[in-house]
Amino acid sequence: MGEKIIRINMTTLTTVAEEVPAEWGALGGRALTSTVVAKEVPPTCEALGKYNKLVFAPGLLTATACANSGRLSAGFKSPLTGTIKESNAGGTAGQKIERLGIKAVIIEGMPEKDTWYSIHIDKDGATIKEDTEYIGLGNYELYKIIGEKMGKVGILSIGPAGEFRMASANISVKDPDGNVRSHGRGGGGAVMGSKKIKYITVDDAGGPGVKLADPDKFKAQARIFAKSMLDHPVSGQGLPTYGTNILVNILNEAGGLPTKNFRFGRCDHAEKICGETMHDVIVSRKGNPSHGCHAGCIIKCSQLYNDADGKYLTSGFEYETVWGLGANGLIESLDDIATCDHIMDDIGIDAIEGAVLINVAMEAGILPWGDGKEAIRLLDVEVRNGTPLGRILGNGAGSVGRTYGITRIPTVKNQAIPAYDPRSVKGIGITYATTTMGADHTSGYTIATNILKVGGFVDPLSKEGQVVLSRNLQIATAAVDSCGLCIFVAFPALDIPECFTAIYEMINARYGCNLTAEDVVEFGKSILKTEHNFNLAAGLTNKDDRLPEFFEEEIPPHNAVWDFTGEEIDEFWNF
Amino acid sequence: MGEKIIRINMTTLTTVAEEVPAEWGALGGRALTSTVVAKEVPPTCEALGKYNKLVFAPGLLTATACANSGRLSAGFKSPLTGTIKESNAGGTAGQKIERLGIKAVIIEGMPEKDTWYSIHIDKDGATIKEDTEYIGLGNYELYKIIGEKMGKVGILSIGPAGEFRMASANISVKDPDGNVRSHGRGGGGAVMGSKKIKYITVDDAGGPGVKLADPDKFKAQARIFAKSMLDHPVSGQGLPTYGTNILVNILNEAGGLPTKNFRFGRCDHAEKICGETMHDVIVSRKGNPSHGCHAGCIIKCSQLYNDADGKYLTSGFEYETVWGLGANGLIESLDDIATCDHIMDDIGIDAIEGAVLINVAMEAGILPWGDGKEAIRLLDVEVRNGTPLGRILGNGAGSVGRTYGITRIPTVKNQAIPAYDPRSVKGIGITYATTTMGADHTSGYTIATNILKVGGFVDPLSKEGQVVLSRNLQIATAAVDSCGLCIFVAFPALDIPECFTAIYEMINARYGCNLTAEDVVEFGKSILKTEHNFNLAAGLTNKDDRLPEFFEEEIPPHNAVWDFTGEEIDEFWNF
Repeated sequence: MGEKIIRINMTTLTTVAEEVPAEWGALGGRALTSTVVAKEVPPTCEALGKYNKLVFAPGLLTATACANSGRLSAGFKSPLTGTIKESNAGGTAGQKIERLGIKAVIIEGMPEKDTWYSIHIDKDGATIKEDTEYIGLGNYELYKIIGEKMGKVGILSIGPAGEFRMASANISVKDPDGNVRSHGRGGGGAVMGSKKIKYITVDDAGGPGVKLADPDKFKAQARIFAKSMLDHPVSGQGLPTYGTNILVNILNEAGGLPTKNFRFGRCDHAEKICGETMHDVIVSRKGNPSHGCHAGCIIKCSQLYNDADGKYLTSGFEYETVWGLGANGLIESLDDIATCDHIMDDIGIDAIEGAVLINVAMEAGILPWGDGKEAIRLLDVEVRNGTPLGRILGNGAGSVGRTYGITRIPTVKNQAIPAYDPRSVKGIGITYATTTMGADHTSGYTIATNILKVGGFVDPLSKEGQVVLSRNLQIATAAVDSCGLCIFVAFPALDIPECFTAIYEMINARYGCNLTAEDVVEFGKSILKTEHNFNLAAGLTNKDDRLPEFFEEEIPPHNAVWDFTGEEIDEFWNF
Repeated sequence: MGEKIIRINMTTLTTVAEEVPAEWGALGGRALTSTVVAKEVPPTCEALGKYNKLVFAPGLLTATACANSGRLSAGFKSPLTGTIKESNAGGTAGQKIERLGIKAVIIEGMPEKDTWYSIHIDKDGATIKEDTEYIGLGNYELYKIIGEKMGKVGILSIGPAGEFRMASANISVKDPDGNVRSHGRGGGGAVMGSKKIKYITVDDAGGPGVKLADPDKFKAQARIFAKSMLDHPVSGQGLPTYGTNILVNILNEAGGLPTKNFRFGRCDHAEKICGETMHDVIVSRKGNPSHGCHAGCIIKCSQLYNDADGKYLTSGFEYETVWGLGANGLIESLDDIATCDHIMDDIGIDAIEGAVLINVAMEAGILPWGDGKEAIRLLDVEVRNGTPLGRILGNGAGSVGRTYGITRIPTVKNQAIPAYDPRSVKGIGITYATTTMGADHTSGYTIATNILKVGGFVDPLSKEGQVVLSRNLQIATAAVDSCGLCIFVAFPALDIPECFTAIYEMINARYGCNLTAEDVVEFGKSILKTEHNFNLAAGLTNKDDRLPEFFEEEIPPHNAVWDFTGEEIDEFWNF
């Protein structure tokens, strides 16, 4: 377990290493960031003001030999949603922070001076430096320059979007190849930008590393865990081969692939953008169809996608991005979508919010449906340079819709709804409505059970069972997000009993504790309640746990509507 | 009392005259619009969607011989604040609607077709006409053309801002001289624009007119009422001579004139923009320093302000506009401010929101502090043409601040805080925080008692007594707003007992009822509670009854801070 908290005060420009408070000792990842934010951030504060804090915490299993455990959580009050927020990512920084014996990095305050800073974290603690040299740079160039100067350090950074404090700005993180991963959702990059931090480097040389209470037990359980992952058809075959984009055809078949800003559930040109096509393009251009976002990943759902000339174009090219620009925005060229993905990583905006804001811009008449080249220009010129139009876009789908006075805005709590129609896959609608995070599929991924028949089956078109399904998955996900585990470990964990057992047994072996399955459930529940209570104290109510009005419209092919009453949705919180 | 409700359905493009439901019989103005909205509009609906309604209702005394009774209320769910909204104005439409025997006009639904309509109301009811000829026109030119075509009809209209569904768009109304008055606050123009109505004409020829149950009693009470108004120093002398802009020097002296986006309580160049200077400029240019916004006004706080060549430039040129651009935005030229006022009336945006959004644009670096010429260009070019920057601006101060990622945004419930600093005049801070309308001085104008010593005196710098003061004034104002009375009748009503008595005795004489002083108070309370309950059902909470974070800063010269706790503010609703 990490041995200290690094606290960085951007008002006084001082840093300090603190002992870990006893009540935080058993927490990691999302459990820890949410607990710190709930304790130290006034819920009604300005998200871009001096009272907000930005908290990074590796998970309970991060940097161990456990497969797929390399995720780092970032927590803050979100300028996009007004809620508490946790957003986790792969990359190299999380494992390095853990190996330095750091349980969390808490960044607070705001500089008085109008300038920029960088932070360096190593075995001796954290140092703050005034550093304006790289302002305006995209993440790719920044990582190249820092890589040349400092070698294999971990990097957390913001692109121009974060500098402009845009609500869709993410916190980017260097991956093992020097490319870009993201703490994508909720505008963490704007919070980092408001604190005037362009980047944070992490050097774990000379750190204490990770110690295990029971190395033999850990090794045995880690082996069971890894085997389950490889045995399960989703994590062992589907995702490694086709990446998350395998879902285009699956959702299209299910009639749940939102098309033309959620007007249709199927997309005529799905074949041009689906995972199978993407795989073939990658292979034909000598890219890599299966690549891990952090050391120790055995799913490798990421990829290296090259352009027609065989040059690197993007990675971490996810289903949600392809869906948003390709189906929901009717852009038929996978290369145009990949170019947008690259730009979004470079300027540092969440690719889901980025795709949906383009959809809403199409709805508002800012660009034509399907115009990939103009989408590229809007992102690369307008958003990158912070023009007035770029500011409107960079603040997300809700900003675009409100500024242009339209009402067909697919958001919950002002965060863009991702790639699964809540009318034809009703469980995910409950997740969008109720999660503490604003519309977010990962926080209770009912697609697993509604569509992929993992963990049983709940009919996606029926209301029955969806609230319970979403609740159970949200509780489990909160626990998984606290371990530093990739959410895709949920597939084997839902179907293979010894996989689930292995997770808490690895924690027991790591820390010398005695968690049971029941403890894991209680842990997940307590995280959700901490987050929900923060949101209520921030002024949110059950009226925020609702989908937009336009989901009363029928969506073909099933002519499904969103038919949950408020009371039915509110059942979610009865636990 | 009006005898019918005119209901206009913009989905079916049909109109109908309905009997007045019994429970609405004793209501008028704000009481009626708020009751209709609360009953018929789902609180969580999209403000710019098909479920919102736009309700116009003359007050209980509108179109009688009672002085200053010519106000018309407009009610709707606000796209700016998300709350219920009532915004009233003078002009000629209200009296004409009343004389047609119409108690309220309720506009509902939304056209399917992408076109524009106008509505004509006369003794035979309402007719809807597809009418795209004047789209893009400003209000001044529109009124000139319609005046030439249709003579002395009342006109309610939107400018380009309403067409663009901007949240600062007002509903404009023709005044007795063919100039422009406004239902200013809360974005009613965007609601009218969402229903694709460019303008509404009202012809009262052949209408039943206004009947009095007891004409002699009415005449006697109306005389007492009018005499009180003329006797009181504020309504009888200050306002008629200098208009509302008399307040620049008074607030500057009190240290409560917010300057440079609420950084200071006094403005160095107050003399250049104050009411006394404005009066002299008007007189020297042969304008008119004292002009009524509707027939029967005896205060005449409006004016005709000419340019340096003696040509009409603007009217209804209020203290709040002069303050916002002049003190809070540091623009020293009264002519530049008057030009902005003219443009805001022409494009149809609320002049308070319009001034403060320019202040926030200065804060964000969009234009330099004090740059009147650029403020003119932003309004006249960017907002008028709906450019991306114009859309950001036209959606109000909150939109500008959020889009540029800044936090010094003087709004409550996303509506701009007007011309009185809540730290150095604490009563008005309670009104800003608690009113159901978003930051609004008129809904509980404590300046009367805090500064002008009308209705007693409550020390503006002390917390003591402010909640009770604001509550009593908000209750009284809700009643006044329901009578069609100008809010300035409150000055004599607070100081001269027979003035207050005359108000309800005129209602008794008009309708043959027996209201008492207690009834008036209960009436006011019930209106506030109806509105508050709507807001709670829309998802607002007491967390929305708070001032922005930056008011924790001291403001010179008194170094006052906003020091009410949440609990103290929440006391407001304990009645």
